[in-house]
Amino acid sequence: MTRERIYLFDTTLRDGQQTPGVDFSLEDKLVVMGLLDQLGVDYIEGGYPGGNPTDTALFSTERASKATFTAFGMTKRAGRSVSNDAGLQQVLNARAKAACFVAKSWDYHVKTALGCTNEENLESIRQTVEAARDAGKEVLIDCEHFFDGYKANPAYALACAEEAYKAGARWVVLCDTNGGTLPAEVSGIVSTVTKSVPGTHLGIHAHNDTEQAVANSLAAVDAGVRQIQGTLNGIGERCGNANLVSLIGTLALKPYYTARFETGIDAERLTELTPVARAFDELLNRSPNKQAPYVGKSAFATKAGIHASAIMKEPETYEHVRPEVVGNRRHLLVSGQAGKSNLMAELQRIGIAVAKDDTRLDALLRDVKQRESQGYAYDGADASFELLARRALGTVPKYFDVLSFRVIVEERDKEMVSEAVVKVKVDDNIYLNAGEGNGPVNALDVALRKDLGKYQGFIDDMELVDFKVRILNGGTGATTRVLIESRDGKGNRWFTVGVSPNIVDASFQALSDSITYKLVREGVSAT
Amino acid sequence: MTRERIYLFDTTLRDGQQTPGVDFSLEDKLVVMGLLDQLGVDYIEGGYPGGNPTDTALFSTERASKATFTAFGMTKRAGRSVSNDAGLQQVLNARAKAACFVAKSWDYHVKTALGCTNEENLESIRQTVEAARDAGKEVLIDCEHFFDGYKANPAYALACAEEAYKAGARWVVLCDTNGGTLPAEVSGIVSTVTKSVPGTHLGIHAHNDTEQAVANSLAAVDAGVRQIQGTLNGIGERCGNANLVSLIGTLALKPYYTARFETGIDAERLTELTPVARAFDELLNRSPNKQAPYVGKSAFATKAGIHASAIMKEPETYEHVRPEVVGNRRHLLVSGQAGKSNLMAELQRIGIAVAKDDTRLDALLRDVKQRESQGYAYDGADASFELLARRALGTVPKYFDVLSFRVIVEERDKEMVSEAVVKVKVDDNIYLNAGEGNGPVNALDVALRKDLGKYQGFIDDMELVDFKVRILNGGTGATTRVLIESRDGKGNRWFTVGVSPNIVDASFQALSDSITYKLVREGVSAT
Repeated sequence: MTRERIYLFDTTLRDGQQTPGVDFSLEDKLVVMGLLDQLGVDYIEGGYPGGNPTDTALFSTERASKATFTAFGMTKRAGRSVSNDAGLQQVLNARAKAACFVAKSWDYHVKTALGCTNEENLESIRQTVEAARDAGKEVLIDCEHFFDGYKANPAYALACAEEAYKAGARWVVLCDTNGGTLPAEVSGIVSTVTKSVPGTHLGIHAHNDTEQAVANSLAAVDAGVRQIQGTLNGIGERCGNANLVSLIGTLALKPYYTARFETGIDAERLTELTPVARAFDELLNRSPNKQAPYVGKSAFATKAGIHASAIMKEPETYEHVRPEVVGNRRHLLVSGQAGKSNLMAELQRIGIAVAKDDTRLDALLRDVKQRESQGYAYDGADASFELLARRALGTVPKYFDVLSFRVIVEERDKEMVSEAVVKVKVDDNIYLNAGEGNGPVNALDVALRKDLGKYQGFIDDMELVDFKVRILNGGTGATTRVLIESRDGKGNRWFTVGVSPNIVDASFQALSDSITYKLVREGVSAT
Repeated sequence: MTRERIYLFDTTLRDGQQTPGVDFSLEDKLVVMGLLDQLGVDYIEGGYPGGNPTDTALFSTERASKATFTAFGMTKRAGRSVSNDAGLQQVLNARAKAACFVAKSWDYHVKTALGCTNEENLESIRQTVEAARDAGKEVLIDCEHFFDGYKANPAYALACAEEAYKAGARWVVLCDTNGGTLPAEVSGIVSTVTKSVPGTHLGIHAHNDTEQAVANSLAAVDAGVRQIQGTLNGIGERCGNANLVSLIGTLALKPYYTARFETGIDAERLTELTPVARAFDELLNRSPNKQAPYVGKSAFATKAGIHASAIMKEPETYEHVRPEVVGNRRHLLVSGQAGKSNLMAELQRIGIAVAKDDTRLDALLRDVKQRESQGYAYDGADASFELLARRALGTVPKYFDVLSFRVIVEERDKEMVSEAVVKVKVDDNIYLNAGEGNGPVNALDVALRKDLGKYQGFIDDMELVDFKVRILNGGTGATTRVLIESRDGKGNRWFTVGVSPNIVDASFQALSDSITYKLVREGVSAT
């Protein structure tokens, strides 16, 4: 079977940098290049040499990359010669195998933004491509505003694309710069373009302003283009660029595409999809989108009991692809809506063996439902759920007993001070621990973990990573739900939950569960 | 011009409830119904009477809604009569004009999940539709797994859809339950279905597992269906349902659709799109997605200097639609000038007159920017913004001075106790107030408002209505943002914000702002 090759061009470091709030350092850019190589994209657009100091530094040295490293810049300014255009020269001299130049292809912008004639712009495209080829570069031309330009003046937009191709550009990329073009329009326009520029030389650059960047990219492939530009997790200006992560999943797994096409990402690389997507969010210091296609934590989760029992029997009829192939996993959520089969499946996953007709299972299910009606949410607190289950089955030792605790928050000499005192009993020993923190929960956490006697060695490497508060019901009768994320020195992460009308009490429950969970996980016995 | 009508069916309260972490209370559901009516969708699916206590309660009384209120349930179980199927009876007896029943349409699931014959399943569909019509309902049949079923056995999937239509269902909804179907496949399959069931009786229910739920919905419309099912902000099981917010923007604004179709949402309703999408996230207590199409904070933002100056001159050539029409606004991130005009507009809106060249305006702008970088969010805290602005212009009296405050939370005799002491100075009088509450913030609120001397008469009718906490950045360097909603006896409501690493301190700032705002609003002078 001969399949056509689709090339993946990543612009996370260039167009992705336009995302409000995203500003890559040189170090960040090198980390992202590593992630992209781990995944196996074909091109990495690193930035705009001359555009800013970081990008200039990035392109000043040869950078190791399996992908074709690409510099971005603008086509030659009209009225200057190639050698007189300092910006163009910086791109030509950049340490990168390929050069991608943005060219106007909407006559309106040629006139208003460049202030030159249509013919001068075509000449600029031609001379830029030729100069870059002479400099030994693989050349790409990004036709800016191509689709809007085509709607306004089809002949001129087409002339720009043709000029770039005839001058020897390896790729002519059709850009939906404003992001408002619809798949049916992309399809129709690309089909026309392929009559004069072969699809094997065409690329698509889509934005997500109508939530169809992925669909537009695939519509362009269906109509003939063979290069897709996009970003990791779809970051980018305004609503973002086409999400390469989603595109990779679909191109690699859907028979509609695999029957005809292949990318540079084989089955082994594909299992890096989830780790790479999450590592990138980690670098951006943001919570991964749980609902992200293929790689989100919820992408293979189900809450409905009727579905859950069937998924256990026959996953392929309830999941559009298998989670493992993209490095993700199945989550069967335990919630008020769940039935016994969700519960069984979840227990099995965390390694608790229990017979289906064990009556303790019914008691546990009732307990989960009752607690969820009080505001507990176990789908986000796997460790609290595991404790609840193990307690129902009688396998959690009573490690410690909290006799009392107190937190004081006050403004003292114009400074905020938070102090906590926790009195805890381990065997026959009583420990009175005091802790200070930047808030009441932090102080409690410090105090509770200060000295747990013989258990202290097991919890020393624990730390509180994140803390989320949700007020349920609102108003004066409000209940507070606190979700705590903890981590240990081995890189394990777990989530616990607490619920109370009092935020301090709710936090204390979650903190206390977190420590107990760690001890259970370490296999510590109470005697 | 005669345009065909597209009907919007919202399933936020039913399928959206399947989102991990989302669990609507009865009160929540009523609030969401209000938002949906504000927007103007055609159908609201409220939930599953009999499926859980909340939904049973929701459907036990007549609920006011402009949209057609719809109950969800399953088709009659094979082997039972309509009157013997208790689940079906609950849906038939629900206080809702329409009933939507999920029916199997993949023969594999008929056999394995229902355990009945294909013929029995068709009979069940027919009898369910007839029974619901007899009960006076408008009937919808959700054909579960329709597209996967069609791929496996086209004749049977089609037979299910036809059976529902012939029995008198108003809508036969084609569901991509597993979410893996691609737009080209949707297009092909829907085209075939329309040969036996008219498009005016067909709906599409898409999931976002390949990031194409919006594209699939529109592909189905292009192929003939006239009803779209989706959710607010695309919440839903796994990767979510089709995002109605994005769909509404595109159907209402893109000539490709407006030339042929209309929805129930006119230009005036359309300006509610952004406020409704954000209010819904507020209800879920999550940060709105800044990159959301049409309604995200970044949807009309630009960072690129070259674009920004051009946008000021000629917005329509850089923006795919105008932000105002969907109730959003433009954000020019690099332009201090744009920031100032935004500020001017905001001051004008709240009735503060100030000259454009007043230097205090620049100081205020710097202050707002600096505070927003610390985590303050004035979009959701109009009263705090107004105080900040009035303080910059020197018109807020210093009513009171908080000398110190302290909160103690402790477990005493197995009961949680929260006590606060606030020392406040008004003129030359010192008031030492103590308060008790069900949590630290409640106790502080009680203490602060217990006695403010000569101002007490003005704040007696105030009360704290809601309290929201969001942890910014996460981790150990986390900052806490507290948003407080207050109300007075005249029915006025206002929002204040506080930010601090310490949740008690952040709450105190917001409480203190709330009281000051009330005094300013009452026109109280400090002398």
